[in-house]
Amino acid sequence: MMQHEDLLAELAHSAEAVTGSLEAMLVETDGHENRVMEAMRYASLGGGKRVRPFLVCAAAALFDVDRSCALRAAAAVEMIHCYSLVHDDLPAMDDDELRRGQTTCHIVFDEATAILAGDALLTKAFEVLADPKTHADPSVRSELVAAFARASGHEGMVGGQMIDLCANEYELDLAQITRLQRMKTGALISVSCDSGALMGKATKKSRHHLLRYAQDIGLAFQITDDLLDVTGDEAEVGKKTQKDADAGKATFVTLLGVDKARERAHVHCQRAQEHLAIFGEKADSLRALATFIVERRS
Amino acid sequence: MMQHEDLLAELAHSAEAVTGSLEAMLVETDGHENRVMEAMRYASLGGGKRVRPFLVCAAAALFDVDRSCALRAAAAVEMIHCYSLVHDDLPAMDDDELRRGQTTCHIVFDEATAILAGDALLTKAFEVLADPKTHADPSVRSELVAAFARASGHEGMVGGQMIDLCANEYELDLAQITRLQRMKTGALISVSCDSGALMGKATKKSRHHLLRYAQDIGLAFQITDDLLDVTGDEAEVGKKTQKDADAGKATFVTLLGVDKARERAHVHCQRAQEHLAIFGEKADSLRALATFIVERRS
Repeated sequence: MMQHEDLLAELAHSAEAVTGSLEAMLVETDGHENRVMEAMRYASLGGGKRVRPFLVCAAAALFDVDRSCALRAAAAVEMIHCYSLVHDDLPAMDDDELRRGQTTCHIVFDEATAILAGDALLTKAFEVLADPKTHADPSVRSELVAAFARASGHEGMVGGQMIDLCANEYELDLAQITRLQRMKTGALISVSCDSGALMGKATKKSRHHLLRYAQDIGLAFQITDDLLDVTGDEAEVGKKTQKDADAGKATFVTLLGVDKARERAHVHCQRAQEHLAIFGEKADSLRALATFIVERRS
Repeated sequence: MMQHEDLLAELAHSAEAVTGSLEAMLVETDGHENRVMEAMRYASLGGGKRVRPFLVCAAAALFDVDRSCALRAAAAVEMIHCYSLVHDDLPAMDDDELRRGQTTCHIVFDEATAILAGDALLTKAFEVLADPKTHADPSVRSELVAAFARASGHEGMVGGQMIDLCANEYELDLAQITRLQRMKTGALISVSCDSGALMGKATKKSRHHLLRYAQDIGLAFQITDDLLDVTGDEAEVGKKTQKDADAGKATFVTLLGVDKARERAHVHCQRAQEHLAIFGEKADSLRALATFIVERRS
């Protein structure tokens, strides 16, 4: 079993590599349009745990995918994640001022620029995935594009955000909250793992187990987010806390209570780790990540 | 030479086919997330000239591409176009209330839903392009994704919109307005034609001429838009007119005057048609479209 410190070192190392990859892809220009690039860089280069890119790289490593290819897919998923944060933070959506410990994009720039920066990050992600440098086999590249699109679109992340925005009207129950979260955050976490399997042309069985792992850590991740919203310290978490409580929103914590929610997160963590059994020691960092996800404080 | 009425019939026929294709791709669901799908459908099924999809199909027909494949790429470009309209119409951007003769998406739904609907339309476009049903050759599918992403992103459409939003600060000259429009509207028009060539595995020479045609009709299209903004009737045009004049914005018309602008549009139209010479009669509808673009009244 990997030690906590070793995982942190691996996470930091991977985060640095992904940031380098994003730096190289998001190139500033001379024209007036550079303002949108500045906003894209602001939104994507400024920190974050980089959990999704880590998942891409760790999953890809299970199948001996070339590291430079994995890093490109990892950068793409981070672009998609960052675009969703920029749009979710807009006044018309969640109206947030703080993200990853820094002022949100639409405040530093303006709303129009933030909308465009999100649009362009999403677009750039697909350009990167479709590029021959990401994978030599064009059918893998097409599968990557289709898989990321399904996970991010109206059946995935965007659909989840839509339900979340309507949530005040409906009073969702536990099954509905679970479905919402599978779409809103789970789908992108799942496709992060799946992209590693796709790039490595994994067997159906491997792909299946990895997806089950991803689904469990996805829920563990969200339950922990809900817990941090209630119990976390704003400065440490890096975004506004007590948001859901203030909005009177149903979450895993309001529906289950703090103790049961924490217990459930740990159950998902354990199940996630069980799904990794078939990969042996090679999956140690994915195992350690599951623990990290439920024990993190930000 | 194709008669004007024949082109109109072809345009109407193609628009109907594209709408049918979009209808079939944008499927309503049972969940609360269906609100975003309703907005996606509202924004994309409600009319428009469908010039870009027509270009995809007409260009693809030059190279005998299967019509059902062409229609899928045509639907994808229309989704990208419609997403850009929804986002451009937002209060933080151009703040428009009328589009294609109907109330804009963020007014019928709300701003958050409109932002998400735009995001999801863009995402769906890439899902469609990457789908094996769009082209049997995965390398063509990857090329389509990359080409549409480049045309729509920070170096293309989004970058152009960014410059446009900054335009009041800078007082752009004719060269800069031309560059802005090549990015904002020209890039998507160009990739519409180019996608037909890509699907048909056209020769470099054919692709080159088709792209030159696209660049010329792109500028002709924009100059005509600027003319309609000044001389057009709001009810006929289907969106608010006199916008640029009211905003004190530089356009082809403010920089050249109405007569010279009209003359220039016709020069681009003629040049565009010259680039089609190598395709013979097969390109008749593309020829007629160039004329249509400069003579349209909406």
